[in-house]
Amino acid sequence: MNAYPPTVIKLIQEFEKMPGIGQKTAERLACYILKQPVEEAMQFAYAVRDVKKLIKTCSVCFNVSESDPCHICCGTNRDSSTICVVEQIVDLLIVEKMGEYHGLYHVLQGHISPLEGITPESLTIEKLLQRVKADHVKEVILATNLNMEGDATALYIHKQLFPLKVRITRLARGLPTGSYLEYANTAIIAEAVSGRNEMKC
Amino acid sequence: MNAYPPTVIKLIQEFEKMPGIGQKTAERLACYILKQPVEEAMQFAYAVRDVKKLIKTCSVCFNVSESDPCHICCGTNRDSSTICVVEQIVDLLIVEKMGEYHGLYHVLQGHISPLEGITPESLTIEKLLQRVKADHVKEVILATNLNMEGDATALYIHKQLFPLKVRITRLARGLPTGSYLEYANTAIIAEAVSGRNEMKC
Repeated sequence: MNAYPPTVIKLIQEFEKMPGIGQKTAERLACYILKQPVEEAMQFAYAVRDVKKLIKTCSVCFNVSESDPCHICCGTNRDSSTICVVEQIVDLLIVEKMGEYHGLYHVLQGHISPLEGITPESLTIEKLLQRVKADHVKEVILATNLNMEGDATALYIHKQLFPLKVRITRLARGLPTGSYLEYANTAIIAEAVSGRNEMKC
Repeated sequence: MNAYPPTVIKLIQEFEKMPGIGQKTAERLACYILKQPVEEAMQFAYAVRDVKKLIKTCSVCFNVSESDPCHICCGTNRDSSTICVVEQIVDLLIVEKMGEYHGLYHVLQGHISPLEGITPESLTIEKLLQRVKADHVKEVILATNLNMEGDATALYIHKQLFPLKVRITRLARGLPTGSYLEYANTAIIAEAVSGRNEMKC
């Protein structure tokens, strides 16, 4: 690393902190910034600054937006009787991109994980319960990840919501469209078999 | 992309411009910036700004540095009779990291490529010739890439340097250490055979 001037070393270290960016990629990205015209590099720096300056967390659903409540919570064409519960913002964006869901969201800001010290209290579950109680919600879709932490979180929320007599659903489990049985593991196959549906022509 | 607020879309687009960063990775990196504490994200933005503000191009060898001439050209423990010619800054850094080369460098800022409209005049070859003429250089190591453009560039520079009666060398060609013949292509094997050396025990 001694070959780099200190400012470049600093930039490489900043890139290395990012998820999925190793030392080689960080160096390549820093060299890209070095080669870029000043205006373009500064546009990038400003984009980072603007995101931190202008983006707020929605006080209703914990989505990110330039306004509070966010553009989804304020949307006049959204079905406010359905809430889709996701672990993090990136999950919300993926569901939203699908374009077929028109309800509201609730971002938990993580999943229950006692090993990592993440308790239900450190998530936004209490706020979700308040919303369901106050806002005439008819259905809560638990769209947490389909792994151990996601399932545990969904189970916990289900237990809390159950007395409120609201419809509680979970994302469908099975084999993803386009997949081959050959490459699926037995746990996935077992779930796909036990959850099998009547075939309609 | 409509699910993202405009400032986040802008940041994703900035990340997408970088080499090797596709849409998915750009979104992941933007979400990482979203999640980061303000101070840390701003440190990253400042690192980009500082690189563009403080880093200069060395007027002697075209390396990047916080001073001009650069820290290598000014280094008192460098052998100024040898110049290693590389295509770009990242190549200089790789040679420098090896730690066994103590001469000076010359960054060409590209390679000759008529198809891309890159002529010898758009590189820093003229400046290299001036350095060799003026600075009592004994050896020029042509460390351009070992592909068609790199070879063509090395050949052109060799032709220009030849009348100056300086030693002109090229990086060794062959099979890389740790490689298997099984996975090398015939062109590489042919070069390794034709360039074979006496084995010393």
